[in-house]
This record gives sequence, C-alpha cells and structure tokens, in this order.
Amino acid sequence: MGLVCSAPKVYKPAAEVDLGPDSDEHYISPNVKAPRVAGLPVKMFAWVLETPVLGPLLLYVLKKDNLVNKLVSDADIPEPPLFTPTHTWQDIPEQNVSLAKPGWSPAARAQEAIDCLPDLADPSSPGFRRWKIRDFAKAYSSGEITPVMVARRFLAAVEECSGPDLNMALFISYDPEDIVRQAEESTLRYQQGAPLSAMDGVLVAVKDEIDCLPYQTTGSVRMPAALCGVVGFKPTAGRLSNSGLLPLNWTVGVPGILAATVEDALIAYAAMVDQSRPAHSQPQLNLPMLTSTHCMPNIRLARYGKWFNDSSDNIRGCCDKALQILRAHYGWETVDVTVPEVEEMRLAHYVTMGAECSASLAAKYLEKLDKSEIGWDVRIALSAYGSFSSRAYLNAQRIRNRQMYFHNKIFETADAIVTPMTGVTAYALQDDALRTGELDYINAAAISRYSIAGNFLGLPAITVTVGYDRGGLPVGLQFIGRPWAEATLLHLAYAMQEACSKSCRKPMVSFDLLSKKE
Amino acid sequence: MGLVCSAPKVYKPAAEVDLGPDSDEHYISPNVKAPRVAGLPVKMFAWVLETPVLGPLLLYVLKKDNLVNKLVSDADIPEPPLFTPTHTWQDIPEQNVSLAKPGWSPAARAQEAIDCLPDLADPSSPGFRRWKIRDFAKAYSSGEITPVMVARRFLAAVEECSGPDLNMALFISYDPEDIVRQAEESTLRYQQGAPLSAMDGVLVAVKDEIDCLPYQTTGSVRMPAALCGVVGFKPTAGRLSNSGLLPLNWTVGVPGILAATVEDALIAYAAMVDQSRPAHSQPQLNLPMLTSTHCMPNIRLARYGKWFNDSSDNIRGCCDKALQILRAHYGWETVDVTVPEVEEMRLAHYVTMGAECSASLAAKYLEKLDKSEIGWDVRIALSAYGSFSSRAYLNAQRIRNRQMYFHNKIFETADAIVTPMTGVTAYALQDDALRTGELDYINAAAISRYSIAGNFLGLPAITVTVGYDRGGLPVGLQFIGRPWAEATLLHLAYAMQEACSKSCRKPMVSFDLLSKKE
Repeated sequence: MGLVCSAPKVYKPAAEVDLGPDSDEHYISPNVKAPRVAGLPVKMFAWVLETPVLGPLLLYVLKKDNLVNKLVSDADIPEPPLFTPTHTWQDIPEQNVSLAKPGWSPAARAQEAIDCLPDLADPSSPGFRRWKIRDFAKAYSSGEITPVMVARRFLAAVEECSGPDLNMALFISYDPEDIVRQAEESTLRYQQGAPLSAMDGVLVAVKDEIDCLPYQTTGSVRMPAALCGVVGFKPTAGRLSNSGLLPLNWTVGVPGILAATVEDALIAYAAMVDQSRPAHSQPQLNLPMLTSTHCMPNIRLARYGKWFNDSSDNIRGCCDKALQILRAHYGWETVDVTVPEVEEMRLAHYVTMGAECSASLAAKYLEKLDKSEIGWDVRIALSAYGSFSSRAYLNAQRIRNRQMYFHNKIFETADAIVTPMTGVTAYALQDDALRTGELDYINAAAISRYSIAGNFLGLPAITVTVGYDRGGLPVGLQFIGRPWAEATLLHLAYAMQEACSKSCRKPMVSFDLLSKKE
Repeated sequence: MGLVCSAPKVYKPAAEVDLGPDSDEHYISPNVKAPRVAGLPVKMFAWVLETPVLGPLLLYVLKKDNLVNKLVSDADIPEPPLFTPTHTWQDIPEQNVSLAKPGWSPAARAQEAIDCLPDLADPSSPGFRRWKIRDFAKAYSSGEITPVMVARRFLAAVEECSGPDLNMALFISYDPEDIVRQAEESTLRYQQGAPLSAMDGVLVAVKDEIDCLPYQTTGSVRMPAALCGVVGFKPTAGRLSNSGLLPLNWTVGVPGILAATVEDALIAYAAMVDQSRPAHSQPQLNLPMLTSTHCMPNIRLARYGKWFNDSSDNIRGCCDKALQILRAHYGWETVDVTVPEVEEMRLAHYVTMGAECSASLAAKYLEKLDKSEIGWDVRIALSAYGSFSSRAYLNAQRIRNRQMYFHNKIFETADAIVTPMTGVTAYALQDDALRTGELDYINAAAISRYSIAGNFLGLPAITVTVGYDRGGLPVGLQFIGRPWAEATLLHLAYAMQEACSKSCRKPMVSFDLLSKKE
C-alpha cells in the first residue's frame, strides 16, 4: 500500500491480479504536486528547460522522484511490450443489429443507419430539442429551408461568437465563400430531387489536430463532447481510416465523431467506416436498430467504484442517478469490478503520447516553428516529452499489454465498463493563461482521468450527457465497449440519452439555424 | 555527400530513393572512432558512467556529435514507426518443393525433409566430410555405433577442449550424467527398432541467450556459424516459436539453427517449425527438394557492390569467386542493386537492441546481478543502452519501416540478396580482454555488418562456408531471402555448399565421434 515509497514498483503477473470487487489492488488518485502556474514563472521554466546541459540536468533531477519513474520508467513489469492497440478482427454476435454489406457506398450505409432509427419526433413538442441530421434533410427535402439559408445563418453565428460579447473563436480557419458555394451546389441538388445522401447540406466541422498539442487530450473527441454537452463517439482502433490525420501520435490517436445526438453519431459512423480493405480482412459492420433498444436484455455494466467516485460531487451524483435510471427503465445491471492500475495506465499513456509527439515533430519542423507562435506551456511540454527514455517508452507498452489483458478479462462478464467521462466539468480559462499559456496538471489529470482506455487500448467508447452541475455545465457518462462491438455501445448511449432527454437543457449559447422564421 | 556534417540527416521519402545500381545513395562504411580499449581504462570508464549525474552528463556530451544522433535520434524521417518485423503470411509459390501438411508431427516433418535429400555419400570417399544427422541415424540403426558410445566420446572431447592446451570452454553448463542417461534411453530405442525420429540420439546443443549481452550479436546464429565454418540458418520471424527464449530483445531476436551442413539445417528446421497456430493462420511449409537444386532456373541474386566489397580482401575474394561458381554451375545471375542506408539500419538496430535490452533487464534483475560476475565491458554497454531516448527508439522504428520497404522492392526483381556474412574473419581474443572485457567497436561493427536485415526486418537468411582466409579461417557467404521463402534459401545454400565442397577443409580442432574404431 506504500504509494509514496521510494522504490520502483514491482508488478505481479497480470494473470495473478484480482479483478473482482473485493480486490486488494490499490487505487491511486493522481496526486499531482504541481500547482497551477501561469505568467512569468512559466516563461522562466521554459527558458531553463531549453538551455543545453542545464535543461536536461533539471529534468533529470525533477524526474528522479516522481510517479512516472516509479510506476513506469523504472518499474519491473513481467509482460512484454504491446506496441499498437490493434485488435484481431472478429465478428461479434450483437443483439438487435442490421448487418451492412461490405460493398455498400457511404451514402447507402448512412441510409441503412437512418432505417435503424425510430420516427422523427415532432419539433413542435415542448422542451429543448437539438436539430439532427434528419431534421436538416427533411427541411431541405421539403424545400422550405435550403442549405444556402442554413450556411448564411451559420456564418453569421460564427461571426457573432467571435465578437467581444461572447469571445469564442470557434474555428481555426474557415472559408465563407467556399461554404456558400458548397451550400449552393447542395441546394441545387435538392431542387433537382437528387441529394448526395441524407447528409447532403448538413454542416460538418473538421477538427484541426494540432490544437491539442500540449495536453494528453489526443486523436480528442469524448472529453470536449462531455464538457460541451454533446455526444462523443470513438470507434475501435482501425474502424475508421487514419488517412489525413496529422501523425502526431502513431499508436494512441484514433479518429472519432462529435455529434449533437446518438442518432447523428450513428449516421456519421455508418458513412465514415473504412471499408477499403478486402471483405475477408475487415470485421463486419453491425448497425444498431435503435427502434429496439428497449428490448436489449441482460446488459451488464462493469463499474469500478473507487475510480467511478474519484470525480466531483456533481458528476458523481449525476452518473450514479444515470445508472439507477438504466436499471429502472431497462433492467440493466451494474456489476462491481476492479480495473487495476488506472493511474499507471494514465501515466503510461502520457509517456507514449509525449514520446511519439516529440519524435514526430522532427527537428526540421520544430526549427521552422516560430517560437513566438507557440505557447510557453507548449514549449515546456515539448521539453518534457523530449526527455522520456526508451526504457520509459518500452515500459509504457508493457503496461499497455497488461491493460489489454485486464480489459479483455472484464469484457468476458460485462458488455461495457461505465465511468464518468471527466473528473471535473469545464473550468474557466483565466486571463493570464491567454498570454503565456498555463501549467495546470491537476485539472488536466482530472479531465482526462477516464478517457485513457479508449485511446491507449483502441477500445470503442462513447459519452452522452446525463445531467448538469450547479453552474449549469453538462456532465457526461462514458461507456467503454468490447473491440468491434460499436453497435452495442450505440444502443447503450441511445438508451441513456432517451432516458435523460426530459432533463436535456438548452446550451448557454445557441443559434437557430433551421426554424422557418427568417 | 557530407557524411560528417553537423546537422541531423533529413531523409527523403522511401519511395523516392533510387534502388538501382547507379543510385546516388551514399554508402557509409562504419567510421567508428573508438579504438580498442581494455584493462584499466575500461574499468575507469565504467565507474564514471555508473556515477549519478556525472554519468548521464558524460553520455550526453559523448553522444552529442556521434552518428547515432545524426542518423537516428535527431534525424528527420518521413515514415511512421514499424515496431515489429512481422510479415503478413502468404503462400509463396516456390520451385522444387514438397509441401508439408499442417497436422504433421515434428518427426513426420523431419522424415519428409530427409525424403527431400539426395543419397547419402559414401563416408569412405576422399577428402574431409562432416558427419551429418543421416550419418548418425544410419550408424545407430546398424547397431555398430550406439548413442552411448557417441555421448562418451563427446564428453571426453569437451573435457579435452577445456584443458590447458586448447583452452576452449565450449559449454556454459552441461550435465554428463544426464547426457549419458538420455543416450542410454536412445540406445535402447534403437535396439528395440523404435527410435523417436531420424534425430534420435543426435547431439544437439542449446544456446544460452545471455552470453551475447554486450554486443549487437543477438537473438546470434549466422555470425558464429560463418566464423566457425558451419551453416547458420535464421528462418522468417514467426516461423519458429520464441517460447523459452530469454526475452532480452522483444523485436529483434529470432531463433535459428546452427548445423554442420545445409542438409542437417533442413532436417532441424522441418522438425522445429512452429505449427501450433490454426492451419488457416500460418503460412504453408515448403520443404526444398534438394535432389533437384540443380534444376532451379532463373535465380537472380541482388548484390550491392559498395557494401559487398566493404570486407577484408580474403573475404571479398572468396565471395566473388563463389558468385562466379554459382553462375558457371547453375547459370544463376547476379544483378547489381543499391541497398540504401545500411549503416543507418545498423545503428537503428543497435538502438533498438540496446533499448529493449535495457528495458527488459529490470532494476530488480540488475540489482540482483553480482557486479563482479559481469564484465566491465558489459557494464559500459548497459550504461549506454540505458541512455537511449524514446525519440531515438521511435526513429529507429521509422528506419525499420523504410528498410522493410526497400527490401520488399528489391525482392520484386531478385530471389535473394547476397552478401559476405561478416566483414572480417574471426580475430584473436587478447589476454587483457579476459580480465576486464574489451571495447572493440571497430571489429564488432565489421563482424555484424551484414547480419542486421535478418534480425531487424525478420527476413530469412542463411550462411554457408565458401572458402578460407590466409590463416585458414573460414569465410561465410550469406543469402537474405523473401519472407516465408525459406525453401528457396535452402536451395541456394545447398547449391553453394555442393559447389564449394571440394575445397571444404577439416576444422583446426576436430574429434571423431562416429568412426567405428574405438
């Protein structure tokens, strides 16, 4: 139980670790000693770290006694490394699914996903309701609203957001002329009765990878989704193509989908699945028949109490209530388990992500980068990343191997692992952080506490909003699923969303893109 | 062409590199600046390196300007990492082979290999001839010689070797009682007419993995084979089981076979192949019909002149002549190619091997290790290995990816790449090296110059003796083959061995284990 002992951790073989609810495995809540820092100290720290000889020496001393060394770099781990989170594909027998054929086009798969959905609710019904892909498609098909009208309202909204009142720079770059041109083409196709697919004319944002550089918030879908009150869905590693992604991290970054609702996440997922490989070398694509989610029997959700409860009171309260709702509405059981070494996994993921980020940003690239353009906090992160030893990296991959074993074991008796999505809700960015960046590893650790398995082990995971904290900020619940069992995860998320829909709130800022008033 | 420039190397994309004979790719002969060191300087160097703070600082300074940093650690490499040298299995259509069935036992496979062999030559024919597995089996079956007789002669020979005259400690450990007991059991089986297989009663040595710790002479089969004048055969990574191997290196160590002749290597290979996986997930096992080697048409051997010739005069002479013989005897063509970045690959392999070795020898293990028991040279090597950064390791894996591309490209037009097996023949161990160990990176680099692709890329490779240097020491030629095309490699090696057999010499030390005189 000696958490702050000085000797490196000696791991016992993974097969000997007790995964039951009464396991004596020690839960380590990240005990980050670094207080939040911003302003001049950040600058000074960056300067010293970038000094030859002195910088490496300072890092050597700083790292001597920290948990990364004890739990990862210097630890004694029986398992060999597992370098990539790839899963052998297998056809999972899932309940209540429609099987998409390998040869189908993205448009055909999106249509099949739409055929899995229940009837579209009446938009005039009381309470807040998000516009969905089907709402756009229906409005466009009727001709009352056109893609051009939506595009113009959208551009006006973006403009308003970046103004002094709201001060939210939503997009790193966008080309208004191109957006309107695309909307005009789409409008024409609807007028001719020949839209490309159900998603023709629906606004889609493409995430710029580089904006997440300083934090362990890679490939970053579920955490921003939870913090913003929408759905974040990361399929199994390999299900979506990586092509086009900036290769900042080779083995932990996985593309995903941010959507307003589970239904839209399903349609986008169906359209985006990578089916470029030969049919016999890819897993079958099950699409969940969301019309029958209420008929999903015998669902078992694994919950690790110590970890689940290591979140703010508001989050814990909302997530506990969500599990009670699932039990009451659908009869789904929660079973208590132990997920061992979650903090060890977080640190191993941090080492992996940092090492790969440092190696992928070659000297040539970093030299070209204008230092005045990147934040001081980023410079400090890059110095730390560059200091990881090959042994730390290899040990991190051994921990990956252990975790893959633990998770697969748990999935033998549970359909998904359930956790809060973040340990805290969104916190305010302070003014000094805008100038120098900030070092806030405490909040960073709390934000990313539950998102590691999805990235590091390539497991599918999804988050849906299950409530709001006292300040009105959204709280997300996460389901982590078996490899390739995305359909089951979407069923779970849809059930959760439907059960919580009555309490769904209007976002603090919203713009009406679709109603018929001009 | 600036080899000793100060800036890190910027690699161009692998697909843009010219692999033809007139490529302008620069060949770097390892320009190791460290002179051979033994005695007190070795001890002092080890002491400083093991000192906290000062040791890491010294390594930081030493590594600042060396080729590992310029060509690997700090280099700018376009490709992502390739972590393991695993090849997707595919059924290679090879010429003149017999197909072994997946369900066969090791004994059945060994028998099938024997059925692929030409008639056993008459042992009374003039000139030196090694005893082969078939010679043992024939003598045992006739009853004139028994496994017990051979075992006792063998034990006497081992005893004589370790005496003051020869001073060769052949085995780290052996149990005479157990060897005789096993031989007695085997003798009984032959008397009952029921030997286990064609290898029953044949002496087999099992290599202790840890003895190769200080040098990049892993997972070490072909180099010792070439230096000792026998056959060394390393199948494709994954063809033999790794189980039981000390996991010093996870991604570069591959088991192999040392045998007196190609014929024995084939029998042992057939018996040892790992067929524990389901039939549909393992490549088919082709056994070469060595009776028909002379009928192999259209064999093309790729040769990179600058690399091939970067060996001692004796070696170059023997290997050139061997290629002429292959052309004259069999009509096999040698085609000139460029294998780019061979020194870069050697350094990348060194980083990989060192980093994995350092991580696998956990703190706990190293602490238990009595420092007086391991050599000073090993301690220095371990200090260096422990200093590799994660970026160096990841860049080494990117170089692995490039090399896999280069080699696969070359195999599109050639059946094998042909090289000398070592850059120098065996060199004498000096007295001071026995006391403190020695640092001799120049000879180490020359010895291992041609063995990297087999280990680092998991490609099959084989060496056979093709001549002797002026001192009478053997010279080995190497064939590196396509993944899973071991049968073709064995054909090549057998052809080479047969064509050179007239000049085969008796080893400097030999013991008669099998002749009928007692």
